[in-house]
Amino acid sequence: MALSGIRVVDLTRILAGPFCTMLLADMGADVIKIESPKGGDPVRDQGAIVNGFSWYFAQFNRNKRSVTLDLYSDEGKAVLADLIRRADVLVENYRPGVLAQMGFDEARLNELNPVLIVASINGYGSTGPQAERPSFDFVAQAMSGFMSLNGDPKGQPMRTGVPMADLIAGLYAAFGIVSALVSRGGPGTGQGQRVESSLMNGMISLLAYLSAQYFATGEVPSRAGNDHPVVCPYGLFNAADGDVAIAPSNDLTARRLFDAIELTHVLDDPDFATNDARLRNRERMNALVNEKIRQRPVDEWIAYLNEAGVPCGRVMDLSEVFSDPQVLAQEMVLDMVHPEAGTVRVTGFPVKLSTTPARLRLPAPSLGADNDAVFRELGYSPERVAALRHGNSLETK
Amino acid sequence: MALSGIRVVDLTRILAGPFCTMLLADMGADVIKIESPKGGDPVRDQGAIVNGFSWYFAQFNRNKRSVTLDLYSDEGKAVLADLIRRADVLVENYRPGVLAQMGFDEARLNELNPVLIVASINGYGSTGPQAERPSFDFVAQAMSGFMSLNGDPKGQPMRTGVPMADLIAGLYAAFGIVSALVSRGGPGTGQGQRVESSLMNGMISLLAYLSAQYFATGEVPSRAGNDHPVVCPYGLFNAADGDVAIAPSNDLTARRLFDAIELTHVLDDPDFATNDARLRNRERMNALVNEKIRQRPVDEWIAYLNEAGVPCGRVMDLSEVFSDPQVLAQEMVLDMVHPEAGTVRVTGFPVKLSTTPARLRLPAPSLGADNDAVFRELGYSPERVAALRHGNSLETK
Repeated sequence: MALSGIRVVDLTRILAGPFCTMLLADMGADVIKIESPKGGDPVRDQGAIVNGFSWYFAQFNRNKRSVTLDLYSDEGKAVLADLIRRADVLVENYRPGVLAQMGFDEARLNELNPVLIVASINGYGSTGPQAERPSFDFVAQAMSGFMSLNGDPKGQPMRTGVPMADLIAGLYAAFGIVSALVSRGGPGTGQGQRVESSLMNGMISLLAYLSAQYFATGEVPSRAGNDHPVVCPYGLFNAADGDVAIAPSNDLTARRLFDAIELTHVLDDPDFATNDARLRNRERMNALVNEKIRQRPVDEWIAYLNEAGVPCGRVMDLSEVFSDPQVLAQEMVLDMVHPEAGTVRVTGFPVKLSTTPARLRLPAPSLGADNDAVFRELGYSPERVAALRHGNSLETK
Repeated sequence: MALSGIRVVDLTRILAGPFCTMLLADMGADVIKIESPKGGDPVRDQGAIVNGFSWYFAQFNRNKRSVTLDLYSDEGKAVLADLIRRADVLVENYRPGVLAQMGFDEARLNELNPVLIVASINGYGSTGPQAERPSFDFVAQAMSGFMSLNGDPKGQPMRTGVPMADLIAGLYAAFGIVSALVSRGGPGTGQGQRVESSLMNGMISLLAYLSAQYFATGEVPSRAGNDHPVVCPYGLFNAADGDVAIAPSNDLTARRLFDAIELTHVLDDPDFATNDARLRNRERMNALVNEKIRQRPVDEWIAYLNEAGVPCGRVMDLSEVFSDPQVLAQEMVLDMVHPEAGTVRVTGFPVKLSTTPARLRLPAPSLGADNDAVFRELGYSPERVAALRHGNSLETK
């Protein structure tokens, strides 16, 4: 696998951090998830629980191993230090400064392991006037400008339906870590370094042409709902039995659409002849298209318009997505067998590598499932392994 | 820089592909963007144009070099072959099969360069019944289930305000490419391979706990607007002069909120005492919170609630985001100087590396700006460089 042999010490919990380390684990890294012996990652108790196991936890913690350590104890910190000594990567999503307070500041980490890559995922970045504020997905969606652009123009600014800021921060961190691994392997380097991503910066980087438009013109973009800011017709149209998403992105595909729905004549009308004209008359244009689309059901339109070379699709709910032949052919639904919880279903791998593909090697672990194995790998004596079993620290406090 | 010395041949255009290669270029890779001599990437003509230069194009093509080649000509293909021979990575976002039709199928690429990493970004993945359908961001948002979860429960399924499917596919491709580079550099490998990401698979991977919930229960999740599916109070509240995003994610922070807004007494009321009870009475709960929040302006609440340990923030528009002291301290606004277009403003780097940070080395290039330099690097004679100048092919057809 692509990241075989890369050892990751994972101090993250909840979503952004575990998503990052899941991406590394899916690619083959040995991710050791350090959890509190008192219940571990809070996500273990969230979402639907089946046979005592959270499927939300399973989704983001597959392919990892779980070790419990009391990081408030000297013994727990000593074990963490040993894990860090032989690791390639440490990932944490504490607030800036917390890891140092726990005794692992930059100097100490460098002393333990000068080639370590230390990745931090936080709310706002670790420098600047608001660095130490707590953040959450919803707050980052609001403060990044993202919500101001999402939703119906007549309604409220709207968060996305998925925890986008968390996921993006995790994905960027994974990209940064792997880039740092390339750098460390390059000629004349061999050095570790710090990698950082934040919920806020990740979301800002996705503002795409909307930020470019603001920078160039000074005009503040606002919500456009399902309308494309500069293309018409484009959007959701009402078929006889549901909605069709139709997205002709240029004049050629717009013409194909008009031909296909017998509206070719609008191109002779100065009100609709060009994209600019259609943008000015968007409501009338959409009404004309809807009048035609309304006459047939969704499935017929999808087949017919795709055949005519017009990009379109149905609005699918999750039951449709996860039974779709294309989605299944892409192996985007996977079953993993957990020793206690039985079969648990998760989503597949979004990046496909031909020679070293991502694989499901390990089910998401029960809390502390890998304590003994990992402590043995550290060379601890059978007595010490026994004493540490189930995450109980030796009575050194 | 992290990816210094990595050579990327970039055949992509529009958004998903150029975003991927921008991420590589920002990390230091030498990205050579191959464009048609007839106008190049269509994005060069899109969005706001200042001094003849598109700021949308600038945003996604900084740090790259531009070379024009007529890939329909034998000469253009010969130059592309030479570029491929010395490249580490090739990135393309044609529909599956198109690169092979151009004469660069798997066997030919392997013959030219057995250690090449070939990355493809497409709509649905290159296998499966719908592999060859065209896709677009909007269609992928609809078909991935994403739109079914985004927006007001009383309104339409809603696309996100940013082209999320394109951006995610590009980001995943960059992660896959860099992972393949680690793999290639590892012991006993040294092989190239294929990397693939798609708009559809990327979006599906972001369904997060919503897909987990569906898999575990069979219940199809629907749009929740700004309400959190399992936390209350949570969302946008109406201050005297605007909205405040308030996100207490657990009982402790909910209690802090109630204390701060003088609603502590609701915890004695069985209708609001627990999160479960509040979820059942969400409308009444939100009305009580709104009644308090309405009494003071946004800025006061932000300062006061953050001080009280309640995560919150304002809904910022882009003018507020890009003048925010924290955003500026994080260098998320950068100016680059283009030789012809003058100063162009772009967003900064979402991943920070301490030793080998991303940098703005090159402005987004004018079309064919690097023809002579790149052709010279290929060892072409002065005559051939002259003949190829401005992307005109030698008359070999």
